[in-house]
Parts: sequence; C-alpha cells; structure tokens
Amino acid sequence: MSVYDKLRALGIVLAPVPPPAAAFLPFVRSGNLIFVSGNIAKKEGKPWTGKLGAELTTAEGKEAARDIAIQLMGTLHEATGDLNKISRIAKLMVLVNSAPTFTEQHLVANGASELFIEVFGEIGRHARSAFGIAQIPFGACVEIELIAESM
Amino acid sequence: MSVYDKLRALGIVLAPVPPPAAAFLPFVRSGNLIFVSGNIAKKEGKPWTGKLGAELTTAEGKEAARDIAIQLMGTLHEATGDLNKISRIAKLMVLVNSAPTFTEQHLVANGASELFIEVFGEIGRHARSAFGIAQIPFGACVEIELIAESM
Amino acid sequence: MSVYDKLRALGIVLAPVPPPAAAFLPFVRSGNLIFVSGNIAKKEGKPWTGKLGAELTTAEGKEAARDIAIQLMGTLHEATGDLNKISRIAKLMVLVNSAPTFTEQHLVANGASELFIEVFGEIGRHARSAFGIAQIPFGACVEIELIAESM
Repeated sequence: MSVYDKLRALGIVLAPVPPPAAAFLPFVRSGNLIFVSGNIAKKEGKPWTGKLGAELTTAEGKEAARDIAIQLMGTLHEATGDLNKISRIAKLMVLVNSAPTFTEQHLVANGASELFIEVFGEIGRHARSAFGIAQIPFGACVEIELIAESM
Repeated sequence: MSVYDKLRALGIVLAPVPPPAAAFLPFVRSGNLIFVSGNIAKKEGKPWTGKLGAELTTAEGKEAARDIAIQLMGTLHEATGDLNKISRIAKLMVLVNSAPTFTEQHLVANGASELFIEVFGEIGRHARSAFGIAQIPFGACVEIELIAESM
Repeated sequence: MSVYDKLRALGIVLAPVPPPAAAFLPFVRSGNLIFVSGNIAKKEGKPWTGKLGAELTTAEGKEAARDIAIQLMGTLHEATGDLNKISRIAKLMVLVNSAPTFTEQHLVANGASELFIEVFGEIGRHARSAFGIAQIPFGACVEIELIAESM
C-alpha cells in the first residue's frame, strides 16, 4: 500500500501548505535531509490554544499533535512531490505548551508519532524529543518540528 | 553584491567570535552542514536580560534577535573563512525567554530571520521554530541556534 | 587509548538501551548522522525529578546531565556497534527543568559536555544549546538530545 492509499484508508486529506505566519519557509532541503519548520496545532483553521495541565487534557493535546502530523505530511508532500520518496521520518521535536506541573509531554507527542508510524510503516519510526515549554506563538497548545530524509 | 558588501551597506561589522561561556564549541561542521551553538542576546558586551511579556517588549526582543543574527554571521564567517561559501541558511531555532502569557515569539524571531534574508538574499530564507521557554543562561532574553549549509 | 579504555578508567559501565517510554526509537541514522532521542535523567532506574532553582541545585543538575551523557553513550554504542566509529559528537540540546528564575543552564549542561570531552577527546567537543523549560516528561530534571557523526 502506498502512503497515499494509507492516508485515504484513514480518511486523511492533506491540505495545501498555508503561507508561514512570519519570515520563514515551510521547509528547506539540504542534501537528503528536509528540515520542516515548527507547525502549530490548529482547529477549524485557527490556532488551537491552551496550556496542557491547565485548559487542555492530555487526550486533547494528543489529538492536537496528530493534527500537526497531518500538516507536516502536507509539507513533506509539497517538498517531495511524492510522499513515497520519503525514505525516513528521522526526528521530531515536540513542544508542549505546559503548566509547570504537567509531565505527560511524551503521551501528547504520541499523537503525532503514532500517525507517522501508521502512515509510513517502519520508515515512519523516528527519534524524538518532547518537552514542556512556557508558550508557543499565538498561544497554540502544541508545536512540532521535523527532520525527514528523502531519496 | 557579495555578502560582505551587503553587511557594509547595512553598517554591520562582524565581531570576532568570543570564547564560549562553557564546555562547548561555537560551531561544528559535519559534511556540508555547520551546526552553530545557541547564541544569547547581548547589549554592550553583556547578556541582554529580561523576559518578553514582562520586562521587555516585542520590539526589544526583535532587536535582540537581530543582534544574535549578527553574532551568528560572525561565527559562520569564522567557520567558512568566507561567508559567500554559505549555500543555505537551513534552520533556526529561536528561544524566547517568555512570561507564561507572551505569544509573539514569531515576531521576535523575525528580527533574526529578516536580517538573514536581507544579507544572504534567497539562500538566507530558512526553516524555523520559535517558542517561549522558562529561562536562558545568564537570564538572556533570546537565544538562537542555527544550522547552515556550505559549499 | 580507545573510548572503551577511557570508560573503564572512569569506572563507567554502559547499560543496555531500555525500550523508549513512548512511540519512538532511541536513535535514527541518516547518512553519517545519528539522531539520538531526548534522554531523561534517571536515579536508581527511575526518573530523576525536580526543578532546578527550586528542588535541585546546579551541582545536582550537573550530575544528572553527566548521567544522561552515559545513557547517550550507551545508545551510540548500540547505534554503531563500536564507539570508536564515532567521528564526532556534533551537537547537544540540553533541556533543563527550570524555575522561572534559574539561569545556570550552561553549568548544568557542562555535566554532559565535559564527560563527552573526557571520553572522546577532541572529537567529543561539540556545538550546544542549553536552556530552561517549563517541564519534562515524568517530571525529570534534565533531558538531552544529541546528534553524532559516525564513519
């Protein structure tokens, strides 16, 4: 099954990459590596705001992380022209907007990690850091940056 | 116009790279990639301290980020011997010392991003993550890490 | 002296890499680069918890960072089969669970940086970012992510 077949089976539609909210690019290629900019969680087209451990639950954060993974796949599609050219999801950096007492950033991050594995299979398995930060642009609850490898 | 002509036109003088404040190097090369260590904002040679959303405004943070971009260019000059050998500013990680309610990290980060584009043109355009953190060494207001690609 | 001789001289025993606590891999290779996931500090097999500037001192944080460096070397051993194949410790990202007033993240990070230099010599010298964040999975005091280069 191709990556696109898997996306279809999951009912996922990749959206066009929106213009960045500031002076940066959605991605940059260097050799086989694709550096994808930090994407923030969105709900109905607007920043999905709130702090984990305060306004949002771990389950909601996990859903937000899954939503970002879909955005990141949209960017990888634009970067490669064909997601089947991705040879590896190399590394995720998962930033969770966290109250000082919230310690389940790894469970929030799983929302993205599990979808990458579901869609890309073995090559979707990646290295990762997840941690809690003080704030995110627009007050978003989660932001994720990615490094992928392509053929 | 070479990168150095642009710097001159902007009245920017690159300073020698100061010795790191701890047990690390200013940069490491690996193949075509140059990993540049996190640089903190400085004012009159001392750490530029304060939290965005508390002691500092977004405009001040943006100026601090621009100052760091100049430091990073000084390091890239030292790393390459000639800034015209830089083939790409690949990725910035912009850390903003933020009060828990400050959500304009992307505008602060533009202070660095816009200068890279001004000086390097198209190859100065980069991927980026910007987010708010609890603190920075020496209480600095902004810290930026960079990955560049050279010929 | 080989890397393993140095480890023996320091009385350091590398432990097998434990399974990750969530849906990610301990490391991913891409070309010559090895991306190692964020490792959290542990004490007697459990997360070493607490915030710097509140429950923990800088000296304790430094010891925690050193402990993580040992974990990371264990992962690099597993990634390469032979630590002598490491050609460079390229970059560390050191995340310190920080009270909003703690500003010695660079001294905490030295606990890891100094051990890499002690064990690997010149090729152990690396680029680095260190900063204070709001929280870390399981409430750990320090988390470190690493990029290494191998032959």
